[in-house]
Amino acid sequence: MNKRLTFRLIGYVLLVEAALMLVPLIVSLIYGGSDAKAIVVSLAITAAAGGLLTLLKPRNDNLRAREGFAVVALSWILLSFFGALPFFIHGCIPNMADAFFETASGFSTTGSTILTDVEALPKGMLFWRSLTHFVGGMGVLVLSLALLPKMGARSIYLMRAESPGPSTDKLVPRIGKNAKILYLLYVGLTVLMLIALLCTGMSLYDALIHALGTAGTGGFSNYNASIAAFRSPAVEIIVTVFMALFGINFSLYYYVIRGNWKGLLQNSELRVYLIVMVVASVIIGGNLVLQMDYDIPSALRYSFFQVNTVMSTSGFGTADFNLWPQLSRTILVGLMLVGASAGSTGGGMKWIRVQLLCKSMVREIRKTVHPKSVNIVKLDGHTVNENTLAGVHGFFFAYFAVLVIATLLISIDGFSFETNVTAVISALSNIGPGLGMVGPSGNYSGFSDFSTIILSMCMLIGRLEFFPVLMLLAPSAWKAY
Amino acid sequence: MNKRLTFRLIGYVLLVEAALMLVPLIVSLIYGGSDAKAIVVSLAITAAAGGLLTLLKPRNDNLRAREGFAVVALSWILLSFFGALPFFIHGCIPNMADAFFETASGFSTTGSTILTDVEALPKGMLFWRSLTHFVGGMGVLVLSLALLPKMGARSIYLMRAESPGPSTDKLVPRIGKNAKILYLLYVGLTVLMLIALLCTGMSLYDALIHALGTAGTGGFSNYNASIAAFRSPAVEIIVTVFMALFGINFSLYYYVIRGNWKGLLQNSELRVYLIVMVVASVIIGGNLVLQMDYDIPSALRYSFFQVNTVMSTSGFGTADFNLWPQLSRTILVGLMLVGASAGSTGGGMKWIRVQLLCKSMVREIRKTVHPKSVNIVKLDGHTVNENTLAGVHGFFFAYFAVLVIATLLISIDGFSFETNVTAVISALSNIGPGLGMVGPSGNYSGFSDFSTIILSMCMLIGRLEFFPVLMLLAPSAWKAY
Repeated sequence: MNKRLTFRLIGYVLLVEAALMLVPLIVSLIYGGSDAKAIVVSLAITAAAGGLLTLLKPRNDNLRAREGFAVVALSWILLSFFGALPFFIHGCIPNMADAFFETASGFSTTGSTILTDVEALPKGMLFWRSLTHFVGGMGVLVLSLALLPKMGARSIYLMRAESPGPSTDKLVPRIGKNAKILYLLYVGLTVLMLIALLCTGMSLYDALIHALGTAGTGGFSNYNASIAAFRSPAVEIIVTVFMALFGINFSLYYYVIRGNWKGLLQNSELRVYLIVMVVASVIIGGNLVLQMDYDIPSALRYSFFQVNTVMSTSGFGTADFNLWPQLSRTILVGLMLVGASAGSTGGGMKWIRVQLLCKSMVREIRKTVHPKSVNIVKLDGHTVNENTLAGVHGFFFAYFAVLVIATLLISIDGFSFETNVTAVISALSNIGPGLGMVGPSGNYSGFSDFSTIILSMCMLIGRLEFFPVLMLLAPSAWKAY
Repeated sequence: MNKRLTFRLIGYVLLVEAALMLVPLIVSLIYGGSDAKAIVVSLAITAAAGGLLTLLKPRNDNLRAREGFAVVALSWILLSFFGALPFFIHGCIPNMADAFFETASGFSTTGSTILTDVEALPKGMLFWRSLTHFVGGMGVLVLSLALLPKMGARSIYLMRAESPGPSTDKLVPRIGKNAKILYLLYVGLTVLMLIALLCTGMSLYDALIHALGTAGTGGFSNYNASIAAFRSPAVEIIVTVFMALFGINFSLYYYVIRGNWKGLLQNSELRVYLIVMVVASVIIGGNLVLQMDYDIPSALRYSFFQVNTVMSTSGFGTADFNLWPQLSRTILVGLMLVGASAGSTGGGMKWIRVQLLCKSMVREIRKTVHPKSVNIVKLDGHTVNENTLAGVHGFFFAYFAVLVIATLLISIDGFSFETNVTAVISALSNIGPGLGMVGPSGNYSGFSDFSTIILSMCMLIGRLEFFPVLMLLAPSAWKAY
């Protein structure tokens, strides 16, 4: 690895983070500035650290896939560390492990919190917390639509139409163009949502917080009751719709803009995503009507919201699904595993992977029946190459391997099996709430510092689709260039 | 599929089952014969059904892989159905779904029970129940060492050394030879265990019951307290050792007999199996000492037994691990997923699959670092072909797909998340106990008939390594030959 170049680039990322801290600083000053000092100090520390790293002189500027992944993985970890400083220095989160958790939860767009009373935080702090979601979502878009396809999983993501030429080992040129398109779409959708929320009579501050949290499919709210605090069906509908929109592959919006309706209709992942959303909402709604005496309209209102909050991996809440019947709870945990669509700001395994895994399984069954037959796996009319399938299977195993190991490690704290398993699933898929102690009305404050850090790492590992972070553990990745 | 031939062969299997019922009939008559009538009636029905099927005249006797798998999968289901008749007709299990569960649990060598008071059953019934374990274990050996390698997963199983020639599509000749060797080893080990148990002063009946249950890695006991009923460290040690032995690939015993020590030492699955066993036992033992005030010798005695009962997928008990600290409980659930070694009578994913999955994951990580590199996966010095890896990944996904779906289905009953998830894992891996309501001192009687049948099918699907049963769902498998 070209270490000097890698760390120099991370230095620039930290400088950007320092610049971003100006936004909560302004917000803080508008609202009295009680938390301004903590933000200024954090900004200075982050800028100093970033500035020092940019002084590194690389021997050459050869940026290959491995440096790209290392920059991404290490940046996300360091962004979370420096981004935690405002909370720690201000004292609203007096434990650095907790502050790291909260910020990793922000940048990974998870939305899990160790705070027991969100409303006690000053406005600047809360704004910074929600801004991390927005920034994290931006980073994920570029990662999943411009960087991850380098791993051979081209057919899973993205803007293929935009980058036809042969794959090179240099990263920079193509990313620039794709990123610009993506950012425009992302900001555009966020502004649309902001306007829609303002139309319901929501304050600008609240509307910004919830638009940033939805765009990143994060889920941080400035109210303890989350979306339920607004007691407004209009707000619920707007959030539901935008959660669904941010959970869709952004390439499809590009198709829409270009008038490529065929590309949109041919996309089987979109169909699966929408069908699952409706079917799960209806089953859960029925479950609520039959077992909890909800009337049908409110059962569907709550089930659609909660299904969308899980499928988009946002984690906002209008009801405590931890108290729902076991069938509904289990369906939601199942949806947590899969999460959103590839190429969205959502997390989880992604539906396209599940589609490919199912198709591979059918192929294996076919092999049992016809041992000599040769089978290829097709998706949306295209043949999926075996390398991509191997990558998807590798991802699937990595997910469960990390799930089992992390569950074992946090079980040392002694909480229930349900709490531990769903806390890790929720972290890996960047959801937010789980079941039991970490249910929608609970939080993560009960865990030990050790578990808090394990869960923080799970959020980052899941967010970066496992391999970029796991790569850092391979000694060969660090070999001098 | 050659349906007539398939069902004719199943007819013979049922005739064998009818003949096997003579054994519990004799036992029943020795102990007073209160349950003899039920056995005779069941025997007659089974013999009649089997006899009728053997009258089918196939147009040719072409037996290919698909017919082989269909015979195996349908036989196991029908064996469980007809094997349930004695319990149902006698009335000791008055519900047919429950009786089917108990017998599927027997033939699949799971050992889960819906009985709340085992000791209330007459001796003939209990003997039949334990005999199903022994018969199931025999069937599994032939399946995994002679039949499954046809699916292209040759390197995962077995007696490769014995069958060098090119793979043909005809099954019969090779199976005959391998099966004979395997049965000799299996019966030999069982007799050894029987003698060892008799030496502790155990009655012949009790010794037979527990030797049959250990050989099949099943776990049915004729005492409510399972092995704990004997209050004998000697019995515990004998059972622990033989559980471990029956969880090892039987090909290795053949190596030992032939003096092929190199083959034995080169087997990495054996090393992994033993290392995990020791490490898990020591961690759990430490956990018991620190958190439950056990003294060190008894902590290790209980932890070694319970780790072995889970790793061999037997399910005998000397302690209620459901009451142990969360770390220990979680380790045991993790071990349940993997279970025993390939080519043993034990169930689960098998350690060799986990080894191959880990190696595949490392390969994917290496691809991230060096996108252009070509990597092969090696095991025990041999290159593993990509077909085998695809099969292993397909198996892994099938395990989790069935786990998620079955957990959803049984969650309708409304029991806890922990109970549901571990009940399905325990069924798929043929363990016996899980956590919560289905812990070592609990049982499966609380589930609805629907869930009972779902769990029964999970036991059979897991036992037959998924694809033979899933194949039956493929319409193309049933196409006329």
